[in-house]
Amino acid sequence: MKLATLKDGSRDGQLAVVSRDLTQAHFAAGIAGRLQQVLDDWNFLSPQLEDLYTALNQGKARHAFAFDPRQCLAPLPRAFHWAEVPAYPDAAERVLRALGIEPPAALREAPAVVAAAGDGLLGAHDEALFEQALPGLDFGPQLAVVSGDVDAGTPADRALDGVRLVLLANAWRSGADGAAPPAAFAPVAVTPEELGAAWRGGRLQLEIETRLDGRRFARLDAAAGLRWHFGRLIARAAATRALGAGAIVGTGTVGARDAADGAGCIAERRALEAAASGEAATPWLAFGNTVRIEAFAADGASVFGAIEQRVSERDE
Amino acid sequence: MKLATLKDGSRDGQLAVVSRDLTQAHFAAGIAGRLQQVLDDWNFLSPQLEDLYTALNQGKARHAFAFDPRQCLAPLPRAFHWAEVPAYPDAAERVLRALGIEPPAALREAPAVVAAAGDGLLGAHDEALFEQALPGLDFGPQLAVVSGDVDAGTPADRALDGVRLVLLANAWRSGADGAAPPAAFAPVAVTPEELGAAWRGGRLQLEIETRLDGRRFARLDAAAGLRWHFGRLIARAAATRALGAGAIVGTGTVGARDAADGAGCIAERRALEAAASGEAATPWLAFGNTVRIEAFAADGASVFGAIEQRVSERDE
Repeated sequence: MKLATLKDGSRDGQLAVVSRDLTQAHFAAGIAGRLQQVLDDWNFLSPQLEDLYTALNQGKARHAFAFDPRQCLAPLPRAFHWAEVPAYPDAAERVLRALGIEPPAALREAPAVVAAAGDGLLGAHDEALFEQALPGLDFGPQLAVVSGDVDAGTPADRALDGVRLVLLANAWRSGADGAAPPAAFAPVAVTPEELGAAWRGGRLQLEIETRLDGRRFARLDAAAGLRWHFGRLIARAAATRALGAGAIVGTGTVGARDAADGAGCIAERRALEAAASGEAATPWLAFGNTVRIEAFAADGASVFGAIEQRVSERDE
Repeated sequence: MKLATLKDGSRDGQLAVVSRDLTQAHFAAGIAGRLQQVLDDWNFLSPQLEDLYTALNQGKARHAFAFDPRQCLAPLPRAFHWAEVPAYPDAAERVLRALGIEPPAALREAPAVVAAAGDGLLGAHDEALFEQALPGLDFGPQLAVVSGDVDAGTPADRALDGVRLVLLANAWRSGADGAAPPAAFAPVAVTPEELGAAWRGGRLQLEIETRLDGRRFARLDAAAGLRWHFGRLIARAAATRALGAGAIVGTGTVGARDAADGAGCIAERRALEAAASGEAATPWLAFGNTVRIEAFAADGASVFGAIEQRVSERDE
């Protein structure tokens, strides 16, 4: 099934079920008001949402309305746990080599965990506000999963069973001190079952397309360069502490296996340009740029809806 | 006022008001079930809790019961934002110098932010579970504040107005990869007003005592070595992104201004021992050790109740 959280003036928004083709929605109010409630009590509440989802797709849901992704908060607007476990070492190694740094072996031997704050996660069409246009403003397109409860030390294969929902995210980056707005999330969260053949062994056979001011920046196979499947990434985040229901674990910025397939972010493209020609030609993001990120299934369908954010100056 | 969250089998527990002397408690059920609810709607709900607190202290609360700190979850058992902003650079510099490393100037020029996951925060008497007894197992006693909503870019003096509650925390540390259980929190959260003269200019005039297996390890003045007051720490965490109500900001491990006053953690003491005699004599924590951390006001009262945790091996 597909779920979204609609703006209603509250901090956590209003949970809705969204039709497979992203055209219709129906509030889940009779079942649960907030997505975290569903994650806290998944086995009891998710079958009820599945029933509503089936009715909605059959055109039989009573109070369906047109789905407007611009009215969405992040599917989980506040998360108790949000971490990236960078899983595309080929791209990371290319960047380091281009900068003249020998990549540490650890980069491809074992995943690391980078925790971030989980409050104020941005909706798909929220502006990305920066204080200054600094060198280093960049996007970070990636897939992420929302887990159920996962015990500390759970092995990767069992950790994979803990995946409740899949998300598309954009983790903003900036210059040296990493100062950036919170990550943004595509309008719709999707269950692994809904992904069908695209979800295989904890990898997603999807293409992630990033557009900058309408022009394609990259279209990357999300599975090709992924060194560790999502079970491994969750197991890593849960290696020494349990994960509570609703933990979000992202892959870090998507990257290609081969440089010829494109760069996942501006930092990678600039590093490759500098290595090839001595000069990084692609500019960093500037105020007024618009970034659009979308994930496509083999049949060309947009799975999560699009993230589309304008880079803007924060008012003081 | 003083607030605690009691275990009731749910993820977020049951909010209670606790008497000034930590002997009596009263559920806040008629006002709010969870602390996050109160933080989300502070101006409306906190005066009602204050009234209950007054009645409880006067012995007039209807359904008061004996307060048992062993029944406490962390005051905020799940936080959407939990970050340390290390604020004791003197101690950090001593450790680096003892290790033969020249401390970077940044350490005392500007605070940094270290985010962590906010799910599964431990109660004061929960065991600290580690997979292995590795070199580097250590405690991290510190004060922390819970903020209200703080806009991105709020200056330090106004950020200080965002402090809703003060907490006593123990952030566990381990060896090289930082693998450790979640931080633990003393049973009771305290409003700044309740702290009276001990809360001055965003600094807490309290002594933090750490005991290891019953023996005093250190008793440190929490204000003396604190380079930045809590307004600065919150402003740093909110420099580039808003903080949502309920964000927890800690000082990092407490440290003395002068080495003669003691070490805040085992890592610091070992570094000083090694520098003085060539050998670090104090062992790292081992399974079976018990750590007790408590903060005392000038009148000798325990302000937040004690953290008392046993270091144990996690069952596989």
